[in-house]
Amino acid sequence: MKIALAQLNYHVGNFESNTNKIIASIREAKQNGADLVVFAELCVCGYPARDFLEFNEFISLCDAAAKQIAAECKDIACIIGLPTPNHNSEGKDLNNSAYFIENGEIKAVVNKALLPNYDIFDEYRYFEPSTSFNCIDFKGKRIALTICEDLWNTIENPLYVTRPMDTLIKQNPDVMINIAASPFAYNHDEERIAILSDNARRYNLPLLYVNHVGAQTELIFDGGSLVFDKTGNIADEMPYFKEHTAYYTLDDNGDLTFEHQTTQMTDRESDIEQIHQGLILGIRDYFYKSGFKQAILGLSGGIDSAVVCALAAEALGPENVMAVLLPSKFSSDHSLKDAEDLVANLGCKSETVAIEKITDAFETALHPQFANLPFNIAEENIQSRSRAVLLMAMCNKFGYILLNTSNKSEAAVGYGTLYGDMCGGISVIGDVFKTQVFQLARHLNREREIIPVNTIVKPPSAELRPDQKDTDSLPEYDILDAILVQYIEQRRSSAEIIKQGFEDAVVHKVLRLVNMAEHKRYQTPPILRVSPKAFGMGRRMPIVGKYLT
Amino acid sequence: MKIALAQLNYHVGNFESNTNKIIASIREAKQNGADLVVFAELCVCGYPARDFLEFNEFISLCDAAAKQIAAECKDIACIIGLPTPNHNSEGKDLNNSAYFIENGEIKAVVNKALLPNYDIFDEYRYFEPSTSFNCIDFKGKRIALTICEDLWNTIENPLYVTRPMDTLIKQNPDVMINIAASPFAYNHDEERIAILSDNARRYNLPLLYVNHVGAQTELIFDGGSLVFDKTGNIADEMPYFKEHTAYYTLDDNGDLTFEHQTTQMTDRESDIEQIHQGLILGIRDYFYKSGFKQAILGLSGGIDSAVVCALAAEALGPENVMAVLLPSKFSSDHSLKDAEDLVANLGCKSETVAIEKITDAFETALHPQFANLPFNIAEENIQSRSRAVLLMAMCNKFGYILLNTSNKSEAAVGYGTLYGDMCGGISVIGDVFKTQVFQLARHLNREREIIPVNTIVKPPSAELRPDQKDTDSLPEYDILDAILVQYIEQRRSSAEIIKQGFEDAVVHKVLRLVNMAEHKRYQTPPILRVSPKAFGMGRRMPIVGKYLT
Repeated sequence: MKIALAQLNYHVGNFESNTNKIIASIREAKQNGADLVVFAELCVCGYPARDFLEFNEFISLCDAAAKQIAAECKDIACIIGLPTPNHNSEGKDLNNSAYFIENGEIKAVVNKALLPNYDIFDEYRYFEPSTSFNCIDFKGKRIALTICEDLWNTIENPLYVTRPMDTLIKQNPDVMINIAASPFAYNHDEERIAILSDNARRYNLPLLYVNHVGAQTELIFDGGSLVFDKTGNIADEMPYFKEHTAYYTLDDNGDLTFEHQTTQMTDRESDIEQIHQGLILGIRDYFYKSGFKQAILGLSGGIDSAVVCALAAEALGPENVMAVLLPSKFSSDHSLKDAEDLVANLGCKSETVAIEKITDAFETALHPQFANLPFNIAEENIQSRSRAVLLMAMCNKFGYILLNTSNKSEAAVGYGTLYGDMCGGISVIGDVFKTQVFQLARHLNREREIIPVNTIVKPPSAELRPDQKDTDSLPEYDILDAILVQYIEQRRSSAEIIKQGFEDAVVHKVLRLVNMAEHKRYQTPPILRVSPKAFGMGRRMPIVGKYLT
Repeated sequence: MKIALAQLNYHVGNFESNTNKIIASIREAKQNGADLVVFAELCVCGYPARDFLEFNEFISLCDAAAKQIAAECKDIACIIGLPTPNHNSEGKDLNNSAYFIENGEIKAVVNKALLPNYDIFDEYRYFEPSTSFNCIDFKGKRIALTICEDLWNTIENPLYVTRPMDTLIKQNPDVMINIAASPFAYNHDEERIAILSDNARRYNLPLLYVNHVGAQTELIFDGGSLVFDKTGNIADEMPYFKEHTAYYTLDDNGDLTFEHQTTQMTDRESDIEQIHQGLILGIRDYFYKSGFKQAILGLSGGIDSAVVCALAAEALGPENVMAVLLPSKFSSDHSLKDAEDLVANLGCKSETVAIEKITDAFETALHPQFANLPFNIAEENIQSRSRAVLLMAMCNKFGYILLNTSNKSEAAVGYGTLYGDMCGGISVIGDVFKTQVFQLARHLNREREIIPVNTIVKPPSAELRPDQKDTDSLPEYDILDAILVQYIEQRRSSAEIIKQGFEDAVVHKVLRLVNMAEHKRYQTPPILRVSPKAFGMGRRMPIVGKYLT
C-alpha cells in the first residue's frame, strides 16, 4: 500500500483555499499511484480555529468542504481532520474528528480522545473526548488512526488517564497513523521525536505522522512530519517550515519503504537557525494571510529593531520594508549612523522624521499641568509614544503593518512603553530573549555583515534621557535572561532560582517586575511563538492579582 | 445545626488578606453560635487565579493558608475552597477542592467533577475532574457537598456526561451545600436560580449556595448567595454586589429556618441597575486591588465618556477623578459646554489641554512623506492618539489610571483608534452596547440631571473631521446593536439574523466589520464583564483567520 503524507500550509477559516489545496494534493497523489493520502489534524478549517468553532455556520462549512473533498476520492482514499457535531445529547457539542474517506464516502470517523488544554491549547473548550477506539481496515491492512495528543501519554506523570493505543493494539493493527497540529518551539522537535519513537517501539508498529506547516497569527507550525519503523527509529523526516509531500510503501512484512529520504538526520538545525526560519515563516504568513504586503518599523540603531528589520526584509523582500528613523535630542550620532548602515546593507526603504518639535509641542501643551516638575518617565514616554503616533499615521496613510520590535526580556520586566514601542500588528521577537537576539544578529551576519557590528557591540540603551543604559534599571542581560528562563519557562520559585547561585535581591526584583507588568503585556500585539512558553494566549495571568508583587 | 454562609470579597493571590478575612469570619460565626461556616470556591487563593496555579510555590501557599485556617476551627467547622495537588500519577496536577475542616483538622476533601471550560472559564487547564463522590457526616446530619458547576448538568443538552448528585443522593444526605465562583452577567441571576432550584426539587433536599462577591480585573462576582427549601423555592437570597454573612438552622425535619431574611424577592433589580452596580464594584475593586486611588479620562462631551466619568465619580469619589477636556479644531462648542456641565454636576477635577498645536506638529513632521495627499483616517487618528499621549503623560506624572471609554458597539465594529481612544488600564463600558449606554445615562439621571441632557440627545460623533456623525459609517445604533447581540451573544449566522428582518447588506457589513476588528480588540484593555459574552478572555478569535471577512 502506497501512502502519501501531505504537509501543507492551511489558513484558519479559509475554506476555499484549504479545500482547493487538499483537492489538488489528492489529485497529485493519485497521479503518483498512492492508495491513501493523509492530511493534518483539523486541516479543513485550519488550526487553531478558536471560537469560530462555536458558530454552527462554521461547522456546516466544514461539513460542506468534507463532502467536496470526498467527491474527489475515487480510486484513492484520504484522511482529513475537521470538527464534527457530537450526536450524544450529553457532553460538548463537537468532536475533533478524522474522516477516513474511500470511494467518495466517509468510511470511518475517529474522534480525538486526549484534548490538550494547556499553554496555547484550548481543545477541551470545544470538543468532547472520545471513549471508543476502532482500527480501520483498508486494502488488507489494518490502520490504528489517532489524532496528535492521543499518542502523548507515554511520558511519566501524563496529563491524561486514558491511552487510545492500548485499546487499538488489541485489534492487531499493521500501522499507526497520527495526524497532528503541533506548533513550533525551538526545543519541541526533540520532544516530539522522543514521544513518537517511544510509541512505535512500545507498540512494535511503523508510525506515520503528519503535521501542519505555516503560521496562524502567533502560532508557527513547523512541519517536520515523521516516519518511524517499528523499532522506533526515524525512517524519514520531512522538511521543516515548508510544504512537502512524500510517499511511503507499507509492504507485506509491515515494513515501510520509500524512494527518496527527504531529510538526512545530520541536517538538524541549531536552535537559533530554527528560530530564524520560524520567524521568517511567521512574518511571511502573517502578512500573506491578512492580505498585506508592506511592513513598517521604527529603526533606533539598536539591536532589536535591526534584527526585526533584517528578518522582515528576508521574509517580505527589502522593497516591502519601510524603516523609519525617528531621532530625538537624546539620540546619539552612532544610532543614526548604525540605522543608516543597516538600511544600506538591506536595501530596504527608509525615511527620517525628527520628533523633537512634536515632543516640544506635548511638553508646551502640558506645561500648565506639569509646571516645573522634574523630567521623568512621563517625558521619556512622550518620546516613545510620539514615535508610535508617527508610525501608525504612516500605516494609516499608506497601508503598512507596523512591526513591533520588543524582545522577550523587556516584555517580561515591563521595560517598554505601552502605546509607544510596545505598538504593532505583530511582535516579531517578543518570544526571543535579549541574549538570543544577540545570537540571532550574529547568525544573520554569518556570511556577511548585515547587522552593523557597532549595533551588536554597543551597550543597549533606550535613549530616552541623556546617557541612559538598560543596565541602569536592569541586571546584565545574561543574568536577567537566566532568571527569566527559569521563572517563565520552568515556573520555578524564587527559592529554587536563588539556589542556582543568583543574588536574592536580584531574583526578587526580577520576579516582581515580571508580575507587575501583566497589565502592559495584556495590551501587546500577538507575539510569534518560538519557545515552549511565550507571552500571550499560552500564559494567562491575573492582572490585579497580588502574588510576588 | 446552625450554618453560616459567608459571602466575601477575596483578592487573587493575596493570601494574607484572604486568610485574615476567612479567619475573622470564622471567629464571628463562632461568636454567633454557628456550627459550620461555609466559604466560596477557591476562596483561599481567589478566583480566577489563572496560571498562578502552575507555580508549585503558589500551591504551597494555599496549603499553608489552609493550615492556618484549620487551626482556627475549634468548636466550629468550616468549608473552604482551594487548589490541591492531585496525588494520582495520571491526569492534571491539581484538583479544585473543598476542605471540610473540623477540630482543627481536614476531615474530608471534595474535588470538583464538572470543570467549566467555556467563555471565561479555563478550569480543565489546571484541574483533574473527580470521579468519586461521598457525603460528609457532621453533627448527626449528612451533607452532600459539591462545587459550583457540579450542579450545572440538569439542563437539556448538558456539557458534561456525569452528575455527582446522582451518586451522592444514594447516600441519603440531609442537605446540599454548593460553594461557587459564579461571575455576574445581567441575565445570569435568573439562570442560576433556575438551575439551583431544579436541583433542590429534583433531589428533594434543601440547598445552601455561597458565591464570591467582588471584582478580579474584568470579572465581577455579584454574590447573591442563595438558600432553597426542598421544594425548590427560594428561602433566602443574600445581597448582590456586597459582602454579607447570614445564618440558617437545619432542623430535625430537614427544614431550614433563619432569623432574618436578607432580601425580599420583590427587590430584584432591573438589568440596567444590575449593570450599574456591577460596574461600580468593578471600578472600585480594580483600583483598590491594584493599589491605585485616582482615575483620569478624556471627556469629549459625548455620552460614553460622560457615563464613564459619572460611574468613576460614584465608585471612587469625585475628588479622585480627573476629567481632561482635549478639544481640537473639529470639536464643537456644545462638546466643551456639555463636558464642563458634567464636571460641574459631578464635582470632579478637570483640566483642559488643546491638541491643535500638537496635531499641527505631527502634520508638519510628516509633510515630506504625506506631501499633499488628502486628509483621511491618518489625520483623524493623529488626533485621537495625541489625546492618548497627553492622558498617559498625566498618568505617568501623577499616578492616575486611565479609564477607557469605548462602548461595546464600537469595540465590536472597530469604530475606535488603536493607541488612541482604545487606550486605558480598564475598559468600563466595553461590555455595554451603545443603546444600553443611553439607558444607563438616563438611569443615572433618574433623580437629578448628572449627565447633561444635551449629551444624551445629540447625535453621536467622534468629531475627528468636520460634521462627522457615527451614522456616516455605521447603521443606526438600535439596528446595529440588535444585529450585534445576535451575532456576538447568540452566535447566530448571517442567514439567521437576516431572517429576523434586517437588510442583507447591513447584516453582512456588520458581521464583516466585527471579524475585521479582531486585531484591534486583541490589544484593548481588560473589559468589565456584565454580559454573557464580553470581548476579552471569554471570546477567543483568530486574528488572521478568514471567515466572514
